[in-house]
Amino acid sequence: MTGDRPGEDDLVRLIRMLVRRRAPGLLAGVGDDCAVLETRAGASLLATTDLLVEDVHFRRRWAEPADIGAKALAVNISDIAAMGGTPRWVLVGLGCPESTGSDEIEAFYEGALGVADAYGVVIVGGDTSSSPAGWLVSITLLGDAVSPVLRSTARAGDLIAVTGTLGQAAAGLAVLERETAPHGIDASPLGDVTAAHLRPRPRVDEGRWLAAAGGVTAMMDLSDGLATDLARLISESGVGARVDVEHLPIARATRIVAEALDVDPVDWATGGGEDYELLVVCEPMALSRLRAGLADATGTTLSAVGEITAGSGVRWLDGRGRSVAVAPGFEHFRG
Amino acid sequence: MTGDRPGEDDLVRLIRMLVRRRAPGLLAGVGDDCAVLETRAGASLLATTDLLVEDVHFRRRWAEPADIGAKALAVNISDIAAMGGTPRWVLVGLGCPESTGSDEIEAFYEGALGVADAYGVVIVGGDTSSSPAGWLVSITLLGDAVSPVLRSTARAGDLIAVTGTLGQAAAGLAVLERETAPHGIDASPLGDVTAAHLRPRPRVDEGRWLAAAGGVTAMMDLSDGLATDLARLISESGVGARVDVEHLPIARATRIVAEALDVDPVDWATGGGEDYELLVVCEPMALSRLRAGLADATGTTLSAVGEITAGSGVRWLDGRGRSVAVAPGFEHFRG
Repeated sequence: MTGDRPGEDDLVRLIRMLVRRRAPGLLAGVGDDCAVLETRAGASLLATTDLLVEDVHFRRRWAEPADIGAKALAVNISDIAAMGGTPRWVLVGLGCPESTGSDEIEAFYEGALGVADAYGVVIVGGDTSSSPAGWLVSITLLGDAVSPVLRSTARAGDLIAVTGTLGQAAAGLAVLERETAPHGIDASPLGDVTAAHLRPRPRVDEGRWLAAAGGVTAMMDLSDGLATDLARLISESGVGARVDVEHLPIARATRIVAEALDVDPVDWATGGGEDYELLVVCEPMALSRLRAGLADATGTTLSAVGEITAGSGVRWLDGRGRSVAVAPGFEHFRG
Repeated sequence: MTGDRPGEDDLVRLIRMLVRRRAPGLLAGVGDDCAVLETRAGASLLATTDLLVEDVHFRRRWAEPADIGAKALAVNISDIAAMGGTPRWVLVGLGCPESTGSDEIEAFYEGALGVADAYGVVIVGGDTSSSPAGWLVSITLLGDAVSPVLRSTARAGDLIAVTGTLGQAAAGLAVLERETAPHGIDASPLGDVTAAHLRPRPRVDEGRWLAAAGGVTAMMDLSDGLATDLARLISESGVGARVDVEHLPIARATRIVAEALDVDPVDWATGGGEDYELLVVCEPMALSRLRAGLADATGTTLSAVGEITAGSGVRWLDGRGRSVAVAPGFEHFRG
């Protein structure tokens, strides 16, 4: 068969075009972090799904079954967090090779349950299958939200901020993918960055606090890197953006690992995925209040990194206001 | 790593043991056709998920992308039907090799949408991924039900019945798996049995009618064959069962194909999976009313095949009341 191989965003557009059939009770569908479904007055049901495939999303060489279970759940919880929602119920599909032992399967579920318990999520169902070629995990997470924050509602003049730091998970992946540990780095930064990759901590408390605080106009989680994800947010909102590259928050551990591996840490901050921080768009007047309040409530930092503009596309500026090129985010099905 | 390779039912037991954490709003979890979740008074939210893997659940040699999409949705709709529910929203995860063309991906979604539209289901979200080794589909379907019928509530003395006929999908699979069409059979029975395998028709109207009619004490859908699925139902209910093998309803097309392939069609009826008929347990006095009412309302037959007994296990009896061995149902991860 023929046909151009589409990129992931092209695929989402194609799917959205195909499924654009309006139905009562569907408030947001394909294209946001979660589907938003109306099941009763006063609260929305959120639903999100992820398919994780060995050697696409993880490698068994460096990911133990417990890591796979924990991360599969965490990345879906992050999608609920991105709407300011509360995660509640999860369905877990697991495919593994026939040679997989029950201890490995148990470790996978223990990993998932550790994260589920930490976030108040209950495993309510699932499916198992053999898989001829490696581990497969499908997770569908349901949650609820009083007022879900969408990614399509950013307005020109709003500020762009991010929680925590960027690029740490990419630094971790770079370390994990090496055959040997990089020379001359202490165990502590190495542990920080690999943990950021293997055991991300979704920002549920932060998302809920921000959604309730007022002044946040749009939000999404950073799963595929700032460059890719911000481009999606502004495209959904019909606006443009300016990002001040020198304001991107980068952790000390990430900088140490970047120096040892001779990488520009800004490339990890813009192009590295899987940080699972929140990309927050807010009214300019709200920023300092949100920053202080979020730190008080959760201990998490909120850093302003740019501004929503009229037009389209992202302009990346250096410290002297000159346009610079940045590393693009990760995309499956890259064209 | 070591550890015995568990069968699918062992795996469900293991998972259930691990996840047995009670939570408010969870009415039924791992082990039934769907999770039953309470989101508001007067109706339950149903959630079910399936993971479908190339060369485990289908082969590309005989399943077109549209078939894969259509069947993936249909088998999940069947799980909602099995509880007497109404399917509403679906999330679709699709993994395919990098070489997959957009026309194939579009055909997959068109297949899924054809079934979705026919049953009033809306695609509300999903995920896409590349897959190194073949097609992967994960479907999570949400629905609702006023009074979901569980599989764990059968009582000794109840009758066992099935909708439609058994073994047709297994006959279809036997034909599809051959290199060449069997000799001496008309196109019509061949078309009937292969369609039963590739394009199953979940019994939504039937399930809803039966759940509302009164007198049905337990229900599930037949996905893995009567032998496997009835064993699950009685195990969940803490009862035993007797089945009269000669009462198993087998379609004429199935018998014709069985004769041509020199197979006992009863083996397909007991051991062949994927019929997606309903296994219905009812009060003895209700059977004739249910049979007549279901035929009137939906045109679908309901055939009594046995009885729920005290004790445990299934006894299969021939026309003279002698115990017979039957073909077991299909299980992934068979030990």
